[in-house]
Amino acid sequence: MVASWRTIQELGPFTTAVWPFIEAQTARLRSALAALCGVGTHRLALTENVSSGCVLPLWGLPWHSGDELLIGDCEHPGVVAACHELARREGLVVATLPVQQLCCNTPQADLDGAVLAALDACLTPRTRLVVLSHLLWNTGAIMPIVAVADRLQTRPRQPWLLVDAAQSLGSIAVAAAAAAADIYAFTGHKWCCGPEGLGGVALSERVLEQAQPTLIGWRSLRQETLASSSWHRDARRFEVATSCVPLCSGLATSLELLSAEGSADARLQRITAMSAQLWEGLQASPGLQPLLPQAPPAGLVSFRLTADDPAGLGSSTAAWVQRLGEQGIWIRRLDQPDCLRACTHITTSADEVGRLIAALRG
Amino acid sequence: MVASWRTIQELGPFTTAVWPFIEAQTARLRSALAALCGVGTHRLALTENVSSGCVLPLWGLPWHSGDELLIGDCEHPGVVAACHELARREGLVVATLPVQQLCCNTPQADLDGAVLAALDACLTPRTRLVVLSHLLWNTGAIMPIVAVADRLQTRPRQPWLLVDAAQSLGSIAVAAAAAAADIYAFTGHKWCCGPEGLGGVALSERVLEQAQPTLIGWRSLRQETLASSSWHRDARRFEVATSCVPLCSGLATSLELLSAEGSADARLQRITAMSAQLWEGLQASPGLQPLLPQAPPAGLVSFRLTADDPAGLGSSTAAWVQRLGEQGIWIRRLDQPDCLRACTHITTSADEVGRLIAALRG
Repeated sequence: MVASWRTIQELGPFTTAVWPFIEAQTARLRSALAALCGVGTHRLALTENVSSGCVLPLWGLPWHSGDELLIGDCEHPGVVAACHELARREGLVVATLPVQQLCCNTPQADLDGAVLAALDACLTPRTRLVVLSHLLWNTGAIMPIVAVADRLQTRPRQPWLLVDAAQSLGSIAVAAAAAAADIYAFTGHKWCCGPEGLGGVALSERVLEQAQPTLIGWRSLRQETLASSSWHRDARRFEVATSCVPLCSGLATSLELLSAEGSADARLQRITAMSAQLWEGLQASPGLQPLLPQAPPAGLVSFRLTADDPAGLGSSTAAWVQRLGEQGIWIRRLDQPDCLRACTHITTSADEVGRLIAALRG
Repeated sequence: MVASWRTIQELGPFTTAVWPFIEAQTARLRSALAALCGVGTHRLALTENVSSGCVLPLWGLPWHSGDELLIGDCEHPGVVAACHELARREGLVVATLPVQQLCCNTPQADLDGAVLAALDACLTPRTRLVVLSHLLWNTGAIMPIVAVADRLQTRPRQPWLLVDAAQSLGSIAVAAAAAAADIYAFTGHKWCCGPEGLGGVALSERVLEQAQPTLIGWRSLRQETLASSSWHRDARRFEVATSCVPLCSGLATSLELLSAEGSADARLQRITAMSAQLWEGLQASPGLQPLLPQAPPAGLVSFRLTADDPAGLGSSTAAWVQRLGEQGIWIRRLDQPDCLRACTHITTSADEVGRLIAALRG
């Protein structure tokens, strides 16, 4: 039996039969996600996707005209576009934190320091928000989120830190970063292998105090049938209305299955064993150039096509995606930078990595 | 095979295999919903729920401090709370359009005129938005949306009309109202009997011109991998990011099944045959008083408990919901006004209506 929000709505709050079942499903998922994020359940809101988790808390923060948003140059177009629209309406200034070239040119051992130096160079007295992904979706490098959060707390205005965690939850340990960020937004459908249409966001205590909800529905309210009700005091104020409850059971089960495969560190070892094999194969292939100067810290492996690619498809990443797809090998292309990106998860085998390299060599 | 947004994201836009399948699923649903709403597909955005459809277009409209929001006194607490938060941030004024008492005291033949008179009495030169449900969730009365829209167009500022269609789509014909409103927001999980977590909103041409998106993700963008991309010109600018695509197939199929049961008018006749039977049974029962003075125009039948109820449960609607639930009869209670509400759909039988009346008589 999978019950549903609709049933709840029709029954009202006093029924004894179904409400506890629904509450148990959402509570089970909320607890699991909060534990992964290293935060109390009161700091965890369920969302439809990463964008909802990133963007919704932003709109209700106390902005002032002239505040600056500092956005990493590897952020996803969705959150960047949302920040620009927020800036347009609130009279904010958008600045860019350059990390892409650092990722491509800096050995991993030096990357954290280089990112922090870039941050220091870009922060101004007016900086009010920094936007930086935990695991960059294009280069595949890990950003030093905890150190960035610490650094921001030393600034006079203590800028908020928004972290896009689309690629990190389920692939690397996230607890320290999620607990340190102000907004740490993720989805269940990528590295957690859960269903699409369900994610979450971990919010800091200060965001819970300072941010009002913007997309408001009955789930935002403490008393859902009273318009005069106040918001939930906890992160549920950023939840909205009817959603697909069975997905909660699905994602909670996905997280359990993932956990049964070993600790986050043990799983990351399996992921990086495969991504290292792929990185090395790419590095050794004429016409292919991995973006990162060393084997990746997680499972994202991006690479460029150089002029002398042997398979004769030229430098068109689109043509390569199609050609590989015809062979049952599914990777994607990216625009910024123009490259191809393959992923290795705990399900990836050495044979599959070998097949990809062989196909790329033509 | 049910494909998914994630697959699309991983494959990128150039793959030939899955993208057309996904596009076909969403296009099938968008076409079906647009046809029901009597609008072109470019005016139809898919949303997670009614609240998303009501609230998201509001935030990006060009508000000016002092603009007035006129909100019906039977609106759902979610949208009312959202309007108050919008008013707080934008410096708007909230006024109330009283229709609840009209519903309870006015014969159906006179209700449209009474609502329009109330509207005229409440509109001011500063009114910028009117919020009114098509089928009121608490009284069960139908509001004259087309006439209201026409009336608003005669005013100097031509206020926008936001219609909460949570109860109307799937229970009454909506095309004229949906095409006349500026924001006509619905869900698939109530009267359409579709899955929860999927709804939509029909938007007017002027809202498409005037409103910027607020909850922004890759689906809002014309080129999803470019942060510099402009919004979709059509209603897709109000769509966000990854959602549960299989729900699209589910709702499209639900709509087909509903359509196979007859035209909207034919189905409404079946619905109102049952709601009339229930209304008459309530009317004839000591201690029970239907809210509406005549048999309902659709399938929502709300009623009060008066002091001399025969079953001895007093006037506690909560106790009645629980008692009926124990008998397998599922109705709900409402706070404003304090009442019980039963629903009849095309699946409701005369026997079920009789059982409810008998149970209420104790």
